Amino acid sequence: MDPVKVGLLGLGTVGGGTVNVLQRNAEEIARRAGRGIEIVQASARDLTKQRICDTENIQLTTDPAEVVDNPDVEVVLELIGGDTLAHEMVMRAIKNGKHVVTANKALIAKHGNEIFAAAQDNDVMVAFEAAVAGGIPIIKSIREGLAANNIEWLAGIINGTGNFILTAMREEGRDFADVLAEAQRLGYAEADPTFDVEGIDAAHKLTILASIAFGMPLNFEAVHTEGITQVTREDVTLAEELGYRIKHLGIARRTPTGIELRVHPTLIPESRLLANVDGVMNAVLVQGDAVGPTLYYGAGAGDEPTASAVVADLVDVVRSLACEPQSRVPHLAFQPDQLEKFHLLPMDEVETAFYLRMQVVDRPGVLAELTAILAELEISIEAVIQREPPQGESLVNIIFLTRVVKEKQMQRALDRFEEMDSIFGQVTRIRVESLR
Amino acid sequence: MDPVKVGLLGLGTVGGGTVNVLQRNAEEIARRAGRGIEIVQASARDLTKQRICDTENIQLTTDPAEVVDNPDVEVVLELIGGDTLAHEMVMRAIKNGKHVVTANKALIAKHGNEIFAAAQDNDVMVAFEAAVAGGIPIIKSIREGLAANNIEWLAGIINGTGNFILTAMREEGRDFADVLAEAQRLGYAEADPTFDVEGIDAAHKLTILASIAFGMPLNFEAVHTEGITQVTREDVTLAEELGYRIKHLGIARRTPTGIELRVHPTLIPESRLLANVDGVMNAVLVQGDAVGPTLYYGAGAGDEPTASAVVADLVDVVRSLACEPQSRVPHLAFQPDQLEKFHLLPMDEVETAFYLRMQVVDRPGVLAELTAILAELEISIEAVIQREPPQGESLVNIIFLTRVVKEKQMQRALDRFEEMDSIFGQVTRIRVESLR
Repeated sequence: MDPVKVGLLGLGTVGGGTVNVLQRNAEEIARRAGRGIEIVQASARDLTKQRICDTENIQLTTDPAEVVDNPDVEVVLELIGGDTLAHEMVMRAIKNGKHVVTANKALIAKHGNEIFAAAQDNDVMVAFEAAVAGGIPIIKSIREGLAANNIEWLAGIINGTGNFILTAMREEGRDFADVLAEAQRLGYAEADPTFDVEGIDAAHKLTILASIAFGMPLNFEAVHTEGITQVTREDVTLAEELGYRIKHLGIARRTPTGIELRVHPTLIPESRLLANVDGVMNAVLVQGDAVGPTLYYGAGAGDEPTASAVVADLVDVVRSLACEPQSRVPHLAFQPDQLEKFHLLPMDEVETAFYLRMQVVDRPGVLAELTAILAELEISIEAVIQREPPQGESLVNIIFLTRVVKEKQMQRALDRFEEMDSIFGQVTRIRVESLR
Repeated sequence: MDPVKVGLLGLGTVGGGTVNVLQRNAEEIARRAGRGIEIVQASARDLTKQRICDTENIQLTTDPAEVVDNPDVEVVLELIGGDTLAHEMVMRAIKNGKHVVTANKALIAKHGNEIFAAAQDNDVMVAFEAAVAGGIPIIKSIREGLAANNIEWLAGIINGTGNFILTAMREEGRDFADVLAEAQRLGYAEADPTFDVEGIDAAHKLTILASIAFGMPLNFEAVHTEGITQVTREDVTLAEELGYRIKHLGIARRTPTGIELRVHPTLIPESRLLANVDGVMNAVLVQGDAVGPTLYYGAGAGDEPTASAVVADLVDVVRSLACEPQSRVPHLAFQPDQLEKFHLLPMDEVETAFYLRMQVVDRPGVLAELTAILAELEISIEAVIQREPPQGESLVNIIFLTRVVKEKQMQRALDRFEEMDSIFGQVTRIRVESLR
């Protein structure tokens, strides 16, 4: 059988990695797929740029539309990134009747509903394993491997940059800004780190995971997103003393009143596997009603880990070329006419436990006042720590761990706390999850 | 579309769990699969027995052949276990042109080559996700999710009973026999625990994992298998002092000279995620050349976790019913005509590091004699611990951690050690893996 002809958009890190993996493992891949896979044309903005891959046998162009319109190309790999040109090219490829493999989380999270509808109309596949957690086959695992389950919740470390920063803060006792600067030097963080440290990248990925877990349209706008820029070295250390680690989690949970979608720093018990996923690694914990907890761990970024997912998608697509559309796995795990628009819970209604840290004037009665407010609002306390002030200072740190409480109830407590004269500055508030 | 009609062999733990999951999640499953799934007939040895599931709408029989020959049945679920009757029924189902889903690791490990050849001749699918690591979608992840990779090695905790025992020995400082008795009381271990604690069950699973990872026929006979019955509380404690945990691992590794297939107790660094997989849980670590390390964790046994994998296979089979055979994922990940009979490395040629513990007479010069033997055989030492004898005893424990050495070279050293008058009893030898 002739090799499948593939067109590649983008020759950057992931594009280059994909070319390298397809070349190096050509034989293994063909032994699995039953056919060879050949990149016949590729586009890049600047053809003079040094590449990480050998492009000798690939026809090059600066115009991605040429690849997308190339009648020889059966499958288009979109590895440009962003959601403007990539969006345009993916829609054009679909309308040209070509299958698409993409690693683009922003594109799928924001335009997936439109893209999948167009794909259905044109009988083509759009595969996006590489869009979430790099090389970990998490889309496949949830969409197919856990198909028997009513998925109850999932929680993931799905941004490697953020995890690198939090890991270094804990292991080396360093400050956020200091570690971020190092991550930028090492190339783990972009010059503009907003997408990573503010949780937007994680929110893109969480959007995709939640849709395939629960069977609902993509809903990026509904994700409550908080970054890690406010996490201090002090909080990391105190969390550890309490038996917790702080991780930047994406969490999707099905509750009787609606679906929660949230990205925020989270204290999790140190004995959980997820608490021990360090550095740039990613992991996703999925709770199914039949299977119980399952966890998937691996590299969430990088040229070859991401290429691993891109090429796995390619093999799937190649294998299914001759199948009728109804024999293919639905894009969002559930049949398109079976997606449900579940109620999405506003953050106010979400219930979690909390870690609170505040600096108070060191005088008798302050702790009594604080606990009275919590008691009045029916917020139960799991633990309290009061720290002696350092030599020569008059402010003490008080830390509360609360039981599970509604977000809006906690907000009431914080409003009351902040009216108190004896509290200095803002109250730090980090959610706590048992992951059970 | 009409529901797919399924016949079930076996109404025990896994069979009952499968009926329960299919009933409880019927709607979610149909929303994914695009069709309902209906168990129309089931067989069990004793129809008067109390079941964990409701069989009201299922036609029951004591004769599995009736199910396998039932013209209404399109897919047969083989959940009898064992490799005699199950073998016969699976072959008969295949010859009847029915697809098969099985949770039977012994059957696949020992008769898979014959079964898959028959399936190919009859254009039917045989799915077996539940045969390895229960509810973890490890077959799918390796076979499809990592299809881009040259898989270098994998290492797994793939027997929950053994892991429960080793975990309790470490956490509670108890002896093997004592914990085994408890595991039997709790139902985690069979009355005859041989399959679990001697590593045979793990060897079945490793056989399957290795074949789909490397693309080779199943080769159960070639697995070097050692159990955990010789692991003492003392070794567990000493390992921990050295920064290691003892786990019963199944390991498959591709080396330049051949493929290693081995199941044995193993010291692994305590910081590895795999070292922190405790109790009855399973996990498999897979190293691919492109993706790097990935890990898959979850429940390795139990009615519903196993049913989760059985039903996921069912959904895959249902979806692919209308596909041509060449569009289906090959049974052993690689196209049947592309399987290679790799050279399998005899254990003598395998290279690992070692933990050695021996009781020696407490007199000067013994340690010098031991290290001289190791030096002569060019075995490098990573660490030595010599323990004072307890009050009133004259034997000391000496523990060596060696660098990587060929098995047969280590055997030479052990033969020399055992000739020494100053060594009392047998030398304990446990392999050490860095999992890097």
